[in-house]
Amino acid sequence: MKHSYLNNKSVDEAQREYFELTDKIGFTCKAEEVLVNQAFGRVTAYAVYAKISSPHYNASAMDGICVTASSTYGASEENPVVLTKNMYETVDTGDAIPDGYDAVIMVEDLIENGSDSFVIHSAVHPWQNIRQVGEDICQGDMLVPAFTTLTPAMCASLLAGGVTRVGVVKKPLVGIIPTGDEIVEPCENPKSGEIIEFNSTVFSGMLLEKGASVKVYDIVRDEKPLLKTALKKAASECDLVLISAGSSAGRDDYTSEIIEEAGTVLTHGIAIKPGKPAILGACGNTPVIGLPGYPVSAIVVMSQFVLPLVDMYFKRAVDTGEYVQATLGKRIVSSLKYAEYVRVTLGKIGDRLIATPLNKGAGIITSFTKADAILFINQNCEGIEQGTQVRVRLLKSINEIESSLVVTGSHDPLIDEIANILKMNATPVLIKSNHVGSMGAITALKSGLSHLGAIHLLDTQTGEYNTSYLEKYFDGEVTLVKGVKRVQGIMVKKGNPLNIRGIEDLKQARIVNRQRGSGTRILLDYLLKKHSILPGEISGYSNEEFTHTAVAALIKADNADAGLGIYSAAAMYGLDFIPVCCEEYDFVVDNRFINDEKVKAFFDVLKSDEFNKRINELGGYEVRE
Amino acid sequence: MKHSYLNNKSVDEAQREYFELTDKIGFTCKAEEVLVNQAFGRVTAYAVYAKISSPHYNASAMDGICVTASSTYGASEENPVVLTKNMYETVDTGDAIPDGYDAVIMVEDLIENGSDSFVIHSAVHPWQNIRQVGEDICQGDMLVPAFTTLTPAMCASLLAGGVTRVGVVKKPLVGIIPTGDEIVEPCENPKSGEIIEFNSTVFSGMLLEKGASVKVYDIVRDEKPLLKTALKKAASECDLVLISAGSSAGRDDYTSEIIEEAGTVLTHGIAIKPGKPAILGACGNTPVIGLPGYPVSAIVVMSQFVLPLVDMYFKRAVDTGEYVQATLGKRIVSSLKYAEYVRVTLGKIGDRLIATPLNKGAGIITSFTKADAILFINQNCEGIEQGTQVRVRLLKSINEIESSLVVTGSHDPLIDEIANILKMNATPVLIKSNHVGSMGAITALKSGLSHLGAIHLLDTQTGEYNTSYLEKYFDGEVTLVKGVKRVQGIMVKKGNPLNIRGIEDLKQARIVNRQRGSGTRILLDYLLKKHSILPGEISGYSNEEFTHTAVAALIKADNADAGLGIYSAAAMYGLDFIPVCCEEYDFVVDNRFINDEKVKAFFDVLKSDEFNKRINELGGYEVRE
Repeated sequence: MKHSYLNNKSVDEAQREYFELTDKIGFTCKAEEVLVNQAFGRVTAYAVYAKISSPHYNASAMDGICVTASSTYGASEENPVVLTKNMYETVDTGDAIPDGYDAVIMVEDLIENGSDSFVIHSAVHPWQNIRQVGEDICQGDMLVPAFTTLTPAMCASLLAGGVTRVGVVKKPLVGIIPTGDEIVEPCENPKSGEIIEFNSTVFSGMLLEKGASVKVYDIVRDEKPLLKTALKKAASECDLVLISAGSSAGRDDYTSEIIEEAGTVLTHGIAIKPGKPAILGACGNTPVIGLPGYPVSAIVVMSQFVLPLVDMYFKRAVDTGEYVQATLGKRIVSSLKYAEYVRVTLGKIGDRLIATPLNKGAGIITSFTKADAILFINQNCEGIEQGTQVRVRLLKSINEIESSLVVTGSHDPLIDEIANILKMNATPVLIKSNHVGSMGAITALKSGLSHLGAIHLLDTQTGEYNTSYLEKYFDGEVTLVKGVKRVQGIMVKKGNPLNIRGIEDLKQARIVNRQRGSGTRILLDYLLKKHSILPGEISGYSNEEFTHTAVAALIKADNADAGLGIYSAAAMYGLDFIPVCCEEYDFVVDNRFINDEKVKAFFDVLKSDEFNKRINELGGYEVRE
Repeated sequence: MKHSYLNNKSVDEAQREYFELTDKIGFTCKAEEVLVNQAFGRVTAYAVYAKISSPHYNASAMDGICVTASSTYGASEENPVVLTKNMYETVDTGDAIPDGYDAVIMVEDLIENGSDSFVIHSAVHPWQNIRQVGEDICQGDMLVPAFTTLTPAMCASLLAGGVTRVGVVKKPLVGIIPTGDEIVEPCENPKSGEIIEFNSTVFSGMLLEKGASVKVYDIVRDEKPLLKTALKKAASECDLVLISAGSSAGRDDYTSEIIEEAGTVLTHGIAIKPGKPAILGACGNTPVIGLPGYPVSAIVVMSQFVLPLVDMYFKRAVDTGEYVQATLGKRIVSSLKYAEYVRVTLGKIGDRLIATPLNKGAGIITSFTKADAILFINQNCEGIEQGTQVRVRLLKSINEIESSLVVTGSHDPLIDEIANILKMNATPVLIKSNHVGSMGAITALKSGLSHLGAIHLLDTQTGEYNTSYLEKYFDGEVTLVKGVKRVQGIMVKKGNPLNIRGIEDLKQARIVNRQRGSGTRILLDYLLKKHSILPGEISGYSNEEFTHTAVAALIKADNADAGLGIYSAAAMYGLDFIPVCCEEYDFVVDNRFINDEKVKAFFDVLKSDEFNKRINELGGYEVRE
């Protein structure tokens, strides 16, 4: 079996070396001319100078009459001056001042005095109420320097300065070659073993945002001659080429070989996680980068190598982003072998900004859709403790982050539905939900990491929900807000092939469980105990998932036969459902935020008809008093 | 003469009333479907749910072999387990796990054991090294709520979830009707009295940035029937109509009348400066806004009324912008009649962010190209003193602002040339120059408002430049850096029709002067005194301009016959030039910044061959030692 190892070059060294190479091979911008009124957002290639002044003639700044200032001298309340027909001409705002005149009297200051004659009570001085030539722009002034992104106002100032065409940096054309035997074009019904090609979509979006043009080539199979032909074609057509996947050192990973054979590989393997199996090389004068197949790894390599290259092409400072200080909400362990690139969500809880790490998996594209910021962990760091102050790079505006309501705890799709209704109603509140289970909600609230908690915690002594937990863990710092009643039960495959009728039948099934600390796990443990079943008797007991839909998905996929969960998840997957109990899914509010607008907006939706209607559609819920 | 008066409605009241009206007439979004990989930056119209899970099958997370976990139990260094041909299948990363297997052993952990057989030294547990169905996305999960701007990662997550088309908000079509007899399409050689139509370019750019579509109609003459026809056509074709100019109450201002006749006018005249003569109305179900003709006024009305309307259309929070605290560098006087919208530049001087107000003129479009932020002054405020802490709304990123070098003082085009060379060399330093004259440089440095000063101050006692001023005003807190020698002289019209040969001949001419405190003004005063000429003897002595090019432009335009200035400005305008003296144009550095990277970069350019070459092209300069 073929297996080779990669380098582990530090990010800094890899960047320095690579950007030296791209500079040497002449990866640099070209210019083109475009119409100024189509040039917004483009980057000037040269300094632009005004061809004419603005105004380019002496223009009246008012509606009124133009006069010679000297003819008005001495005018006062006591000694009005009369201006007769041949002493003035009528002008409107913007009109050219006719030769021989050097001031304008505005219409409001004129008193009619029979036909064609006016009385004035104060003098005007030379050039009063006239926009003299060049008031705004003087011919020859530099309007915009080179390598400047044109704003709407800049484009207008170019037009005002008589410039109708402008030399801008030609957008670099970036070619993207998706590769892989298992890769298929986006579709709604891929077969088993087929992976939807979505990486080129992320890359395209990131590149378009930076002002590049993008050409996505057809998917190429994992065959060396095909890959090599595709690379050579793209390198001849584009300014920069990205090869998606095949960058590691596995059986079908040819990217490094083909770049080496068609050009040169400078680096293969970078000490960053995710992102390690990246390839930095060139083919002729075209930089070629091999990106890892896992989307998160690829995005990291895009951010560290590809986007800075585009910034350099436009001669703009490499975008180092905006940073803020935040408190780490959860411990992170990191390896000394790699620098790490951790996606975090941010929430403003009181006066603290809390950073919560998202799923680390390199395949988890949703960790980037949810991420608010990046926490970069140096290679020489073994991890960071909860509560530490960290510096994170923002991916969203701080305004957006501060308008977020953080809901932590038990998973239920209804939280997403509330988020959606808030959006539909244009309420400026974003919901950030962390699925850490009901006990996780209690911990988060105790540590000041969340505005709201979502819990369904059964008191196994009393059979009651939630209240006793709050009494045990809090001293009145929180308030319970009744949420919904929902049906919990056993989800099984359509038709219930194992004929499961209750908890005791789980001994005959492979189950999928929820994570420790979740209300559903506590419920299962309670039910098992009640039926005197030990966890060890249940196959799959240690197979843990974080959401009801994940449990349903695994039963549907036949990774398991059964699992405890809510009715709406079973319905979504067309699974059969054996109801077990009706539980109380409630919210806990940190009292500091009980009057917070975001919290109020959340509960307003919870009480709304719109929400009621939606959970009836989902099924298995009942709204509480 | 027709003259009517406008309302003076407060901005808040005008906004509240108008947005109620637009809501009532149904200014709201429509949906359309687009391909997900063309949906970046678009706004979802509905919540989007995953159609399939991702992965949608159990996928190997590694190159290796798949096995049943139970077949590996007990494997250790002492008790290796042998896996023979029928106990495994070879899988690559991403491959589907064949039925009957539930774990993957990675290739690195396999020891070959003859043909088709492997030895392993540790066990795997069920689902190890397998990406189970739904690991990233579960079918039915809400991927993105409604009214969310799609990022590249979101688009990828939609594709991963089997969604190939997405319902997005149809871009609102905004029609722009430029009006006015004096308005012409952008060109390089407008005639006297013709105004280049650049406002629709600013509006278009601002609207495109907000995600709207734009249709710019042909220019319409100031004739009521034509205007009315144009309005009705646009109102029937577009979602929102902007009429550019004619919004005031002057002779040819018909905008208000035609909106009134074709629909309804809610407000005409708003208590904001610039921006007062705005019209808020509707034609049928289409909001119609009359924008002032002066570009700065129009931009203010765009920001306060039009862009919030577009934000509301997309159901996003009205963009209130990002604010920072800054120290006001110059006193501002404001009227109690209006709220005021002051454009300021920002510079980070030491640890203070300094806000310097730009030219207030409503016609000065360059005040928006240079502005870094907006200072909003309430209607009930008469002004703000220098040194006051103010809250300003950023128009640029704070990173960009912090990379700026503030150069204050005497005007010379060479400062723009240095800014350009820095850009050409991709040096991350932006130059912000304030033309306030040489004495202004001294004041700014003394008050800590500038990194650098640019001065050419003649000591009329000694005939020397600059040094004695620094001795007089500073106590060693600054350092003089030699800049260039430049020729000052009298600029006169081509052919010198008045036959001006020296300062004494200015008595026969209308001059244009530089502002008080400028080095050139001090030089003129010195020369006049030397020739025993009193200022009162010189016509136009009190006609002040702030730059050499402005003086040249006015002589060229025949607003004046002569003016003192530098050779390069005369050359730019094809004026004749009578040299008077050679002066020293130098730089003064606040010692705190003498080692600042930005300051060093500036002086590196000053010493460069590139700069030397450029000032030789401009003419009239000599680089100093």
